[in-house]
Amino acid sequence: MQIKHPYLMFLGNAADQLAAKTAQGIVHWRRDWCIGQLRLENCNADLGLPEMEVSEAAAAGVRTLVIGVANRGGIIGESWTATIVDAIEAGLDVASGLHARISEIPQIADAARANGAQLFDVRHPTQTFDVGTGARRPGKRLLAVGTDCSVGKMYTALAIEETLTARGIDCDFRATGQTGILISGSGVSVDAVVSDFISGATEWLAPANAVDHWDLVEGQGSLFHPSYAGVTMGLVHGSQPDALVLCHEPTRAHMRGLPHQNLPEIGACLDGHLAAAQLTNPEALFVGIAVNTSGMRDDDARAALLGGLSDRFSLPAVDPVRDGMAAIADRLEDI
Amino acid sequence: MQIKHPYLMFLGNAADQLAAKTAQGIVHWRRDWCIGQLRLENCNADLGLPEMEVSEAAAAGVRTLVIGVANRGGIIGESWTATIVDAIEAGLDVASGLHARISEIPQIADAARANGAQLFDVRHPTQTFDVGTGARRPGKRLLAVGTDCSVGKMYTALAIEETLTARGIDCDFRATGQTGILISGSGVSVDAVVSDFISGATEWLAPANAVDHWDLVEGQGSLFHPSYAGVTMGLVHGSQPDALVLCHEPTRAHMRGLPHQNLPEIGACLDGHLAAAQLTNPEALFVGIAVNTSGMRDDDARAALLGGLSDRFSLPAVDPVRDGMAAIADRLEDI
Repeated sequence: MQIKHPYLMFLGNAADQLAAKTAQGIVHWRRDWCIGQLRLENCNADLGLPEMEVSEAAAAGVRTLVIGVANRGGIIGESWTATIVDAIEAGLDVASGLHARISEIPQIADAARANGAQLFDVRHPTQTFDVGTGARRPGKRLLAVGTDCSVGKMYTALAIEETLTARGIDCDFRATGQTGILISGSGVSVDAVVSDFISGATEWLAPANAVDHWDLVEGQGSLFHPSYAGVTMGLVHGSQPDALVLCHEPTRAHMRGLPHQNLPEIGACLDGHLAAAQLTNPEALFVGIAVNTSGMRDDDARAALLGGLSDRFSLPAVDPVRDGMAAIADRLEDI
Repeated sequence: MQIKHPYLMFLGNAADQLAAKTAQGIVHWRRDWCIGQLRLENCNADLGLPEMEVSEAAAAGVRTLVIGVANRGGIIGESWTATIVDAIEAGLDVASGLHARISEIPQIADAARANGAQLFDVRHPTQTFDVGTGARRPGKRLLAVGTDCSVGKMYTALAIEETLTARGIDCDFRATGQTGILISGSGVSVDAVVSDFISGATEWLAPANAVDHWDLVEGQGSLFHPSYAGVTMGLVHGSQPDALVLCHEPTRAHMRGLPHQNLPEIGACLDGHLAAAQLTNPEALFVGIAVNTSGMRDDDARAALLGGLSDRFSLPAVDPVRDGMAAIADRLEDI
């Protein structure tokens, strides 16, 4: 699977800017892949890209229409179908991050068949995977893990990719969720893989590589989240990480979606993920803590938190947005 | 899903006795459900049950034809189809533990539709599950975990069910794999569930119950097996065990299927599973170690091993086949 760029970003009739969160992530990390945006009537989101019709986009060299917008219920808006079919007839592929499959809408599937277009429902893996083996393979790998879901694991992996690339270090971001897949053009939605194959799918995603090459694997969930820890465990074992970064959001009152579930203590969270990682890579170690401090208004409190974590665990503790990833990249250069 | 008994055990043209391992397990644990066996030409397996044609079985009250035999490649033998269709036309349901789905064979699917028969492909869950929550629910639950795959987790859970039932304690075996499902008539093949729903499927399987009721949940894999630990993690969190039993096979040279992977140390294996279990049940504890000593010829060595484990971890350490489950059941009665 390789989604071709450049992209035309389809925003449909997005109710608000939040509904276009996936599209915004793509524009943030791959601005040069995003040539324009296409909005229908009553669209309340705006990516700040040039407005383009399908025909203009095709003429400008766009290869894929990207549906990076959430609709109520994750379904495909009926009003979207005509535009999607137009894009296919103009020679574009279509990639969607929605739960509902565009490939199951008859008009879209028929148009794709007739025009030889590819349809990518990136939440739904179509390939089959082998069972994971845990056998050591060459190449270096980093995995972002977290105290909870939605604490910045994708952002962290992408920010490290950006920093290493700027230093001339050979690396790839490896996507494990729908937004990441649209950002990298490939990947596997591991939470949609049959559970026997979680670690195997991750081994496929981050395969043997040159000894100095870094794969920067997007994490999912947390070993301490009762809903998703199985996914996380398979990711940890399959990615066989040399380096781990713990991602954290310090203002959260409880685990995401579970008011009865406390956040793990940071030390226990480091220990738990490290012990799991060492099953398939005895040399695994943490190289930093990435804290999303955007919810903290007080700069002194923010600095105290990061300084405290850094002192306590002898690791760089940074806010990836404010501080960047230089301190963590320095550690990676020592591995 | 509830597979109706009594069963007619279909052995097809099994190459040898080992090919009928699933059927043997069913006969071992549910002898009174198994009225007869049906063997085709060149069948080299024998369950010791009365030979029965479909018509005799139907007349004897059989409700389900059970395909508890492995074919090369896990497929449905062409020579089997006629017998399966006969059974459906005689009013039986059909349950299969094969990888290949009987429901996808047109003649079988057509016959089932025409006769209102149910087809159970027990390796392939058909229901949908919610995401797990980890919220505490009433009822007591035990989970069998292991140092490796295939170390007697199903046997252990079933032997405990037998012992508790004999003591008049209300309990249910909860199956998580195909043989267990055919033995209990229901359950979920958790390794075939989409990975986002492992813990949710387990919460469904072992739901809220009377406060003194025990669910005895069949385990899968091991947190220390790089191929399947994700499945195990979801099972541990979803079953929310009050009690854990560690299953072990002491003669194994490496993790099953993985010559490069050492077995975990017993103490680390106890600690790792307990820490995971305490995420959703802080009161979780181990109640015993079940060791399959059938590979040890020397009775003194066997006794020394069990005695050593029992002393070191202050837990009953038994061979379920030789010693029974009384010592572990005693611990359960204290919870």
